[in-house]
Amino acid sequence: MSVDTLAISTIRLLAVDAVAAANSGHPGAPLGLAPAAHALFKKMAFNPANPDWINRDRFVLSNGHACALLYSMLVLYGYDLTLEDLKHFRQLHSKTPGHPEAHEIPGVEVTTGPLGQGICNGVGLALAQKQFAATYNKPGFPISDSYTYVFLGDGCLMEGVSSEASSLAGHLQLNNLIAFWDDNQISIDGSTKVSFTEDVIARYRAYDWNIIEVIKGDDDIEAISNAIDEAKKCTNKPTLIRLKTIIGYGSLAAGTHSVHGSPLKADDIKQLKEKFGFDPSKSFVIPEEVTALYQEHVKENQSKEAAWNDLFASYKKEFPELGAQLQRRLDGQLPEGWEKALPVYTPQDKAVATRKLSETVLSSLYNVLPELIGGSADLTPSNLTRAAAAVDFQAPSTGLGDYSGRYIRYGVREHGMGAIMNGIAAFGANYKNFGGTFLNFVSYAAGAVRLSALSQLPSIWVATHDSIGLGEDGPTHQPIETLAHFRALPNTAVWRPADGNEVSAAYKQAIESTTTPHIIALTRQNLPQLEGSSIEKASKGGYILCKKSDTPDLTFVSSGSEVSICVDASAKLAEQGIKANVVSIPDFLTFNKQSEDYKLSVLPDGVPIMSVEVMSTFGWSKFSHQQFGINTFGASGKAEDLYKYFGFTPDNIAAKGLDTINFYKGKQVISPIRCAF
Amino acid sequence: MSVDTLAISTIRLLAVDAVAAANSGHPGAPLGLAPAAHALFKKMAFNPANPDWINRDRFVLSNGHACALLYSMLVLYGYDLTLEDLKHFRQLHSKTPGHPEAHEIPGVEVTTGPLGQGICNGVGLALAQKQFAATYNKPGFPISDSYTYVFLGDGCLMEGVSSEASSLAGHLQLNNLIAFWDDNQISIDGSTKVSFTEDVIARYRAYDWNIIEVIKGDDDIEAISNAIDEAKKCTNKPTLIRLKTIIGYGSLAAGTHSVHGSPLKADDIKQLKEKFGFDPSKSFVIPEEVTALYQEHVKENQSKEAAWNDLFASYKKEFPELGAQLQRRLDGQLPEGWEKALPVYTPQDKAVATRKLSETVLSSLYNVLPELIGGSADLTPSNLTRAAAAVDFQAPSTGLGDYSGRYIRYGVREHGMGAIMNGIAAFGANYKNFGGTFLNFVSYAAGAVRLSALSQLPSIWVATHDSIGLGEDGPTHQPIETLAHFRALPNTAVWRPADGNEVSAAYKQAIESTTTPHIIALTRQNLPQLEGSSIEKASKGGYILCKKSDTPDLTFVSSGSEVSICVDASAKLAEQGIKANVVSIPDFLTFNKQSEDYKLSVLPDGVPIMSVEVMSTFGWSKFSHQQFGINTFGASGKAEDLYKYFGFTPDNIAAKGLDTINFYKGKQVISPIRCAF
Repeated sequence: MSVDTLAISTIRLLAVDAVAAANSGHPGAPLGLAPAAHALFKKMAFNPANPDWINRDRFVLSNGHACALLYSMLVLYGYDLTLEDLKHFRQLHSKTPGHPEAHEIPGVEVTTGPLGQGICNGVGLALAQKQFAATYNKPGFPISDSYTYVFLGDGCLMEGVSSEASSLAGHLQLNNLIAFWDDNQISIDGSTKVSFTEDVIARYRAYDWNIIEVIKGDDDIEAISNAIDEAKKCTNKPTLIRLKTIIGYGSLAAGTHSVHGSPLKADDIKQLKEKFGFDPSKSFVIPEEVTALYQEHVKENQSKEAAWNDLFASYKKEFPELGAQLQRRLDGQLPEGWEKALPVYTPQDKAVATRKLSETVLSSLYNVLPELIGGSADLTPSNLTRAAAAVDFQAPSTGLGDYSGRYIRYGVREHGMGAIMNGIAAFGANYKNFGGTFLNFVSYAAGAVRLSALSQLPSIWVATHDSIGLGEDGPTHQPIETLAHFRALPNTAVWRPADGNEVSAAYKQAIESTTTPHIIALTRQNLPQLEGSSIEKASKGGYILCKKSDTPDLTFVSSGSEVSICVDASAKLAEQGIKANVVSIPDFLTFNKQSEDYKLSVLPDGVPIMSVEVMSTFGWSKFSHQQFGINTFGASGKAEDLYKYFGFTPDNIAAKGLDTINFYKGKQVISPIRCAF
Repeated sequence: MSVDTLAISTIRLLAVDAVAAANSGHPGAPLGLAPAAHALFKKMAFNPANPDWINRDRFVLSNGHACALLYSMLVLYGYDLTLEDLKHFRQLHSKTPGHPEAHEIPGVEVTTGPLGQGICNGVGLALAQKQFAATYNKPGFPISDSYTYVFLGDGCLMEGVSSEASSLAGHLQLNNLIAFWDDNQISIDGSTKVSFTEDVIARYRAYDWNIIEVIKGDDDIEAISNAIDEAKKCTNKPTLIRLKTIIGYGSLAAGTHSVHGSPLKADDIKQLKEKFGFDPSKSFVIPEEVTALYQEHVKENQSKEAAWNDLFASYKKEFPELGAQLQRRLDGQLPEGWEKALPVYTPQDKAVATRKLSETVLSSLYNVLPELIGGSADLTPSNLTRAAAAVDFQAPSTGLGDYSGRYIRYGVREHGMGAIMNGIAAFGANYKNFGGTFLNFVSYAAGAVRLSALSQLPSIWVATHDSIGLGEDGPTHQPIETLAHFRALPNTAVWRPADGNEVSAAYKQAIESTTTPHIIALTRQNLPQLEGSSIEKASKGGYILCKKSDTPDLTFVSSGSEVSICVDASAKLAEQGIKANVVSIPDFLTFNKQSEDYKLSVLPDGVPIMSVEVMSTFGWSKFSHQQFGINTFGASGKAEDLYKYFGFTPDNIAAKGLDTINFYKGKQVISPIRCAF
């Protein structure tokens, strides 16, 4: 038996043993894909001792349920993951969760499992690499020449999000992306014949991908290796390598969906080990020759990294400015004093839509932050996401831009954009990347946003047209539930700034964050610059914007476009001798992180609090006693008509405020900040 | 000038005038697509006086922003929509909102605007028609032979959701679906060259669609008509007709993105009217010949409907049983006593996972409700959505089922499934249709769910694996924010039943609803049958399940799998002489609709309330004073370990209950049901 065959059998059996030990998991895909993993990793440059090396090749397991395969590879290659970890596969507190989690496991590039995401992350990684290389490579100094490799299954191909990103990858000619389709013709419902009979190869050709087919994908290592070499020769297309495989290769149930998501039976494991020449009485076995084989490759790779370090040292001498910039980025630092580029406003400044204020910020930061990259899902003139100085990220041959460009034309592909953004963020090198769409359509990308939050990727959503204030486009476009949705998502900042200073605060936090996605909800309509706002105060997530009294009769809490209405309502109430403070809460997540003392100073006991936001009141009861909002869908009409119709006028808010005061008269008013535990 | 040309100019100018009057809207696509609309409507069977005629052809405007075109057609054909309505285009309270809303406007089949949805709705309509025809057609009695036509633009084609549904439509061989691609090469960011250069035709061929090309799509009516005839000849494929058009045809800005979403300038409108031979000083003009032309077609169509009514009358005599069933469905009635098929449980019945209880309901209803149709996004063995007696909905030639089948293999396409479900629901004939996936992946379909709610389509989501209780698959699969998201969406029932009786209640409401989508969140793990539950009580959305006292020390409010834990916690507290009632709230929407008196009887003043749900606490403050949940992501591990780790044990819940009681001791406790307005 060749050592390659032995290694492949080892991978297969580690995966099978892990699933069996957990009595839970997916043995089928690892059995089919082990040869491809073996052949591919041998071709890849990476260093298990330094998984963050910027010029490593990246591997994405888009069919994340096959993680027993990935974990086995990481163990075999000596990443900070051990056989013990593998023995605790899928157990609480293990380093081997049921799907690969990038922020938990060294060597896992992106978090996968939700189907279709990984291949899109791969597009993002490849896009970032192209941009990075075009920015820093110089003749004789190939600072970046890495590849991104993806395994994906039929499920990933059925998901629309992968169609979006694959179409864009073809358009962008990302030849540094090489994906392997595990064509095993089985999904959970059985044969793919029941629902998935399209011609995948023809579809990917239509996207302008390079296609290579490997007939015996679960056996023929040489063919797989050759396919990778072949793919690398292609200069202007991403490559899809179709690997025909048998799911559960070697198992008694091979080729059926029963090996997809359930552990193999004991007698099946026994015959498998015997067939592969292993002792059926032993589990989690790694033959020494296999360890030696992989360690040899690690050594070669460590030499590669050492050579790269030398190259980078010379680069810094040759190109001191770019070199220093790159070093700063690799250190995860922002440029000294970058935040001075954030605009500051006074109440004398004119009323401007927050989407427009966002444009000012993005333009202002464009030259300050070379790591700032982003685009829009075909709403550039509406989202105002493109800095005047920007160059489009495009294949140079198109004449529409070049690969050093930092403006991405995503097309009408919100979900794909979100997943690509995650890939860009995961590339490293301090990329700060944003995507623009209407707030309502961030929901199309919910699957990707959730993974940003879970895997701690600081993607930024420029989410304009944030309410009924968008007017005539009507209820199909007007968010009602959207803020509640993302406020309920852990580790997600959902900013809804009320004016220019709050917009700057939102971007300050978004850019400084290394672990939290930010959704910045912005208006289409103009808003006044408020008395009492500042970047510093807004950076606490919530603060008293307008203080009428230390012991007011009422507190309005509000966000975004309704804050100025509350200020006006407070003025109306003042005419009647009623003191109403106004609190702006531009971001729940940040406000929640403040000390209880601070939060109680903003929302003290004894004062009834009424929330005002022009959408669902859901969740506002956490910060208020009484809520005013819109718990129906919106309507099509002029923004001012809609605000009037739904009662968002100073007069009506003042009247509702009075109702709230009267309701709580004589009652004990406990701050909603207080809680029993 | 021929009357056809005059009619087309009329359509174009009505659309332009409407947008101009609103000073808002999208004139570009209507100008390009007017000839296609004219040619198509002439081929369609429909009756403006009875827009619900079941055998009408259906038209879907997937590029919903072009609604000025659709509204103009409806006005010209004499639907219940007038020139006056058109003059109030996009104004508050008009019948002509900024995007077409099906529940508001007779003649609009589905609500569109969010791109990609309409074409998928079209797939659903075509699927329903196939199933309907296969169920009721008999030799000599073509009860159903209608077509579904769709207009879609580049934006729809870029959205992944359309890829999902189009792939499935090809697989299902839906030759009753004919789509027109408005190939105008312009989107909001300018030329489609910047982001959308794939070969659409090759892609649709890969999906196994029939392709027809019309070179002068904005001019050549005959070619368009011929294309429709040609498409109808195809017996086993959906058809995509590529219409090459010029956006803003005739305008000075034709062929540029500036005509996409902004009104034409006054001088442009003037030259356009002159060019078309209209008086530039007049607006909203309908020449008599045009009215006459369309009325003639209406008359022909009314004869068609009359003939169909005769046919149906004979059918009822020839096939009394099927005829009566069909009549019942057309009347929107459920079979007498259908709800007796819903299972009822007692505490003596064994503990069962609610997904399994759901399977029992679906199997039980399968033969009782011939209008029940549904499937799963490739999770059949996990969602347990397939009744044992079910036949798959498949093209008969595949040997996998037939078109009368009522089980749909959606593939891993949650968003496409959701949008197709909307199409099935919009078909009429009382279809009750469901789709299964993991609760976490309903989020992939958020765009479609939102449109179910907005356009009042009673789709049903069988959303299993509803919490960390799914165990080892881990945080990528465990919902945290999902219930909050959909609870905040207006007109959306989000059921999380606690036992068998509550599962039956959820289905009772879901099946009886004609205007509200239902998401039914179901467990993977077993739950006991509870003392105190009943279909009747649960049907109120919230009720006292376990009453220890009329004046308890505490109320637990909970849902789903945590209700039984609260019952046990209450028993623990009783041992210490502390009385804690347990309230089950399986659905916020239904509970909110109850009278204030009822709600106060469930959640009275003076009793501290603590919510218990194994996910985000967001929104629970509306029904409780103190919340216990999970405001982080979950973890991978055995379900029992996770429940323990996150503190969802009777002991810990009892302890938290005590904390809550102590915190509120001596404080005034106002029911959260009470509010100022």
